[in-house]
Parts: sequence; C-alpha cells; structure tokens
Amino acid sequence: MTRPIALLTDYGAGSEHVGALHALLARETPGGERIDLAHELPAGRVRWAAIILARQVRLLPAGSVALAVVDPAVGTDRRALAVRTAGGIDLVGPDNGLLAPAIEGLGGASAAVELAVPPDAPATFHGRDLFAPAAASLAAGAALEDLGSPVDPAGIESLPLPAPVVEEGAVSTEVVAWDRFGNVATLATGDALERAGLGLEQIVLVESGASRHGAVIHRAFGEVPPGDMMVYVDSHGWVAIAINGGDAAELLGAEEGMTLRISQGRRAAAA
Amino acid sequence: MTRPIALLTDYGAGSEHVGALHALLARETPGGERIDLAHELPAGRVRWAAIILARQVRLLPAGSVALAVVDPAVGTDRRALAVRTAGGIDLVGPDNGLLAPAIEGLGGASAAVELAVPPDAPATFHGRDLFAPAAASLAAGAALEDLGSPVDPAGIESLPLPAPVVEEGAVSTEVVAWDRFGNVATLATGDALERAGLGLEQIVLVESGASRHGAVIHRAFGEVPPGDMMVYVDSHGWVAIAINGGDAAELLGAEEGMTLRISQGRRAAAA
Amino acid sequence: MTRPIALLTDYGAGSEHVGALHALLARETPGGERIDLAHELPAGRVRWAAIILARQVRLLPAGSVALAVVDPAVGTDRRALAVRTAGGIDLVGPDNGLLAPAIEGLGGASAAVELAVPPDAPATFHGRDLFAPAAASLAAGAALEDLGSPVDPAGIESLPLPAPVVEEGAVSTEVVAWDRFGNVATLATGDALERAGLGLEQIVLVESGASRHGAVIHRAFGEVPPGDMMVYVDSHGWVAIAINGGDAAELLGAEEGMTLRISQGRRAAAA
Repeated sequence: MTRPIALLTDYGAGSEHVGALHALLARETPGGERIDLAHELPAGRVRWAAIILARQVRLLPAGSVALAVVDPAVGTDRRALAVRTAGGIDLVGPDNGLLAPAIEGLGGASAAVELAVPPDAPATFHGRDLFAPAAASLAAGAALEDLGSPVDPAGIESLPLPAPVVEEGAVSTEVVAWDRFGNVATLATGDALERAGLGLEQIVLVESGASRHGAVIHRAFGEVPPGDMMVYVDSHGWVAIAINGGDAAELLGAEEGMTLRISQGRRAAAA
Repeated sequence: MTRPIALLTDYGAGSEHVGALHALLARETPGGERIDLAHELPAGRVRWAAIILARQVRLLPAGSVALAVVDPAVGTDRRALAVRTAGGIDLVGPDNGLLAPAIEGLGGASAAVELAVPPDAPATFHGRDLFAPAAASLAAGAALEDLGSPVDPAGIESLPLPAPVVEEGAVSTEVVAWDRFGNVATLATGDALERAGLGLEQIVLVESGASRHGAVIHRAFGEVPPGDMMVYVDSHGWVAIAINGGDAAELLGAEEGMTLRISQGRRAAAA
Repeated sequence: MTRPIALLTDYGAGSEHVGALHALLARETPGGERIDLAHELPAGRVRWAAIILARQVRLLPAGSVALAVVDPAVGTDRRALAVRTAGGIDLVGPDNGLLAPAIEGLGGASAAVELAVPPDAPATFHGRDLFAPAAASLAAGAALEDLGSPVDPAGIESLPLPAPVVEEGAVSTEVVAWDRFGNVATLATGDALERAGLGLEQIVLVESGASRHGAVIHRAFGEVPPGDMMVYVDSHGWVAIAINGGDAAELLGAEEGMTLRISQGRRAAAA
C-alpha cells in the first residue's frame, strides 16, 4: 500500500516546477495519492511556509509523507533531511527551519537522516532531484534508515517565532504573512488577546509604524460594515486583521516582521 | 465506492486554504477522486462563481458531490446547505445564490438540508470546518438527510441574472467577468445576437460608457487580425468579447455589471 | 488499465478552463491518474511551452498520454493531432510547433493522426471539445488510428530554436522565458559556456541591449551574495541567469527573443 504524499512548495501553482514533482511522483508511486498543500507561498519565506506546513500536516491522512520545499539555499551546504515523527507522518525537506514547527506539532522527531545529494544532481532543483525521490521511496515502503545517514533530531534547525508582548489592554506582535483576501496573519495566538483583557466587541486601535486604524474584535467578516477593519482569531487560532470586502494588508502596508500593536480604543470624548 | 468530489472556491490556486480542503478530503475519503473545478475565481464575486459552477457541474462524473465555497458572508446567519439534484449530483455550499444556477442546470433540487455549524468551529473557515466535512460524508455514502435539518428547496437563494435587451440591430447586456486572456463574458446568450439580426461576419460597434470600438462577429480568435476586436459566442454559448492576441477587458475598462452595447456598424461612407 | 493523462496548458492554474478538462477527463477515465505538468505558462507563447513540454514528458510514467494545449490559433485551420512516439508516450495537441521538441526528445513519432473537429464544437475551446476527449480515448485504450486520419509525422510543425553563437570568451543567445523567481532561461545549453571557455567561478558580463551587469558563473543560488547576479546551468542543462534573492528578469528587462551576451569579464584595472 503506497503512502499518500503531500506537497508544499513556493514554486507557484501551475508552475512547471510543481509539475515536475507530480510527474516524477506519479512515475515512482503509481496509483498513489498526492495532496497539494500549498504552492503559492511567497518565494523563499521560510518562516511563513513553516507555520503553514505545521497547520496543514495535522489534517493529513495517517501515515502520509510530507514533501516540503522552500529552499532559498538550495545547493549550498544546508542539510537535506527526512524525519520520522511520533505522529506517524514523515517529513522530507531542507534543514533550514521549515520542518521544525511541523515536527513539534506532530509530537517530535523519533528519527532523522541526512539525504545524500546524488553526485550528478544540478544544484538548483533539489525538489525534483533529491527531495521528491526520497519522498517517493518512503511512500513506496522504504525505511527511513535506508535513505541516508542518521542524524540527531535535536540538531534540526528551528526558527525564531517571537512571542507577542502582552500588557493590560494591549498586544504587540509581528506580521508574518497575508493572503489573497488581504487578511494579515500575526505571530500572536488568540489567548494573547484574552490575557490583555481584549474581548469580543471591544473597540481597538491597530497601529503599525505611523499608521493607526480603528477596528473592532469580531468573529466573522460579515459582522463589521463593508470597509471596516476587524481583529479576529483566525481559523488556526492566531490573531489576524481583516477588512470586510477590503484589503487590510494593503491598508496597513504589511511587511513580514513589521510590528503590529492592538490596543484598547475609546470612542472620542465629547468636546 | 466513494463518490468523486469536485471543488470550486475563490481561495486561490495553490493556496493553503485549498490545500486544507484537499488534506481533509484525502483523510476522510481515502482513495476517492477529487476534481478541482476552479479556485482562481475573483474573491467574493458570487454571481460569476455561480455561473461557472453551473457550467462545470455538467461535465462531472455521474454521482459526483460538488463542494462550492465562495462565501463572503461566512460566519454570519446565511445558511449552509447540502442539496440533492434531479441529475444525481449533490451540491454543498453557502445559501447565497452560488448554488442556484447549478441546481437549475441539473434539473432542480429534489431535497435540501441545512448544515449545522459545529459549536466550536471558527467563524472564518467554514470551507474546512463545515462544507468539506459534509461533502466528504456524502462522498463516503452518508444520506443527505443525515447531514442536517430538511429545508424547502424552493427557498434556496437565487441571484439576479438580468436578461439582455434585444432590439433590431442591437443587444445590450452586462459584463459578468473576464479571464486571464482578457476575454470578456456577458450575461447574453448567443441567441440574443440572432434575435437582433446580428450574424457572423457582421461589423459591429461595442460600446461601454464613453468607450466605442469597432469589431466583427466571428467564431475563432485567429479569424481577426492581431489586435482586432471580435464578438463571439463562447464555448458555453454566451456572448463574449476578445481581442486577437490582446486584452479586451483592459481596453473596455471591464467592470462587473457594466453595460455593454453591441450594435450594427457600418463602414464609413465615402465623403 | 487506464493510462495516465498529463496536462500542460496556458489556461492558468485554478482556472475554470483547467477545471473543465479535469471534470471531463474524470468522467471519461474513472479512476485514472491525471498529472498537471504546467498551467501557468505565459498565454499563447508556443515556443516556451514546447520547451517545457519536452522537459516534462521525460519524467512521466511509461505509457502516459500528454495533453498539451497552447493554441492561439484555436478554431482556424491549424491541424489538431494525436502522435505516437517511439518512447511509448502519446501526445495530443495543436500542430503549431508545440509538440515537436517533445516528439524529438521521446525518440521521434512512429505514427500520427489528424483529429476531426466535431461539427458542432465551438471554435474557442478545443481543449475541452477536441483534445481532452481524444486524450481520454487513448487513455481508455483506443488505438491512435481510430481517432482520425493518418498523417505523415515528418510534416508535423516545428519551431525555430536558434543555436547560440559561441566565440572564444563569449556566448550570445536568446531569452526564452523566466519564472516567478525572476530566473531567466535562454536557448543555450551548458556546453556553449564550455566551448566559449567560460567555466565555474568565471567573472562575466551579461549584456542585453544597453544594459550591462557583472556576474559570476556558479552552481547554486546561495553561492553568490544576496543581490548579486549569477550565470548558471539550470536543472535541465540550459544556461540561465539569476540574482540571489532578487529578480534577474526585471533587472535585465527580459523579453522573449531578446539577445543576451555573456562574455568574459575582468576586474577593473587599477587606475
């Protein structure tokens, strides 16, 4: 029985690079299941891809192999890994921090091997020439140990994901990404709002640099009037910013790593 | 035998949102067929998505379950539905007009249920938390009646699709969408041209607001010189505008709902 | 046993056009494997699509049917073909040069037929109405000869792919395309650099029109400092230009067919 293979890359949906992975996997695992987790991730942004990967692997069929390639340092001496997790899902990808949050979310790594780069492989497409073949081997039943030299799972690269700063009435956090709807994701989880004493229906200020916007904490986009900003806990449990029918990322001038401050707002006092 | 599941969303091709649906469906219906009908639909534009859905469901394998999510009011009190059609295809999606043209094209609804939102579901991703699980249940063999409370199919939301205005020598209609080639789709079907007495090879004026362009009615893009505008009946039978090798949407300043008038043109008289 | 079907188009990832092909193929070849090779190819650019197709078919499972539609002259009198190759892979698509490099790469055509356009087919979507049904028939076991009238494989349209001009210390070639990372592909293969005496670590000038940039020949993106330009042999063996973390296509003002000259550079002499 072939294990399902899940793919996550920054190659672009419908790109020939994704197509090459699919062609190769179809050839090596005939009849096997392939699941596209995401391909339109922003190019080379490892931290955001790592967060998405951690969210997606929780939804996969048991026993899946996740092939993740966001790899700006392809061809350099960063390691290439295959990792077995306590949850029974294996991960294959570069050792640049991409795999760490997923490994943690799956209960930790029980074993890991470093993949050997084939001596004749070009240095620019390890997705096709190194990672996909390794994922296909695992899916077809190979043992992790047969794919490379054992390495200590404790040495797998991780990424800084700074915790939000929580005060009474305010949360400061980093922008980490935004989607095609302009919804802005942050590094704060929903409990940060609670700890700051900010609840549903609370009027807040959303500040980024010189930009200040009034918003309300809500659950659903349709709960604020069109064009109004809302702060919400997104479907993964993280604090996010949206504009009903608009583009919060554009209005906030969103950049990765930009600090956002969400603080208790007050209605303007009568003069 | 698992029924095929067809997906249509405005989540964006290769987005993590589409990936979440695929991961969940792969887990709940192992070995089942999944068919991506469209994901690059313009965000929140329910009317166009409804038209595309109606076109696509006709091509599906018998017994498919169509999971359609273009849902700007997610999390508000719009209903969530699963609908059985006379054609044997079931539809799952929000009750905002998205499903109506497809239901009609499939011979009408024979039963419908309102899906209950799980009490702990976030209010922003019903595609993953409500609609996909319902589609997976149907695909795995569940009865429609087991998914929610019966509702009257006659009460399913529909959308205004204004008929074109046909005069002798002229058709006025609305722009409804355009694709990556810049081809502009309207709400008129090909018979409107015939009723106006406009046939193949006819020289016409295409007017939108202050903009006027000469064009010819043709069948194939290559029948007009590069850069020339043509009016044609598209592959679904609807009147559309294209420029051979160019972008008609850009030239016409296409906007959803904009009125287009196509009228009999004459060659300039000799002076 | 259904043969796998591989799809390559310029319809756009996630577009309803690609969705229509998938729906139809799923209906006609239940349980069959479908492989998306590329859909985000630039609209109507047959030459680049032909090169990509030739690269991708080498990765496919044995016995696959490749359905390729980049077809700006759809509906005119260009022929529609199904082609059997020596390599056992069949190709279906328009006779506009798109298929030629793939046929050559697969060992040549052993037979070809011209597909008959159904009399009632619209002239604008042969992908759905002509090519996909033919590919589905082949995948389901039909003989090539049953799909149309035999034609001489020697008469299949090819495309000019000008060889690079190689001098001592310099290669001149054409830009053929670029990807989402801004990496620019040329029509020169890696041996052109060798024949010009340009090897790894060589400092070069990259010139296009009035624009001149210093670069170094390297193997991996991470081998040059961020923002620096490198010349490399890409994963298919072709000469390409990249900027580590940047967009070479934008900096070079890349256009299809633009001449690029890569020549031996020297460090500026001391004054």
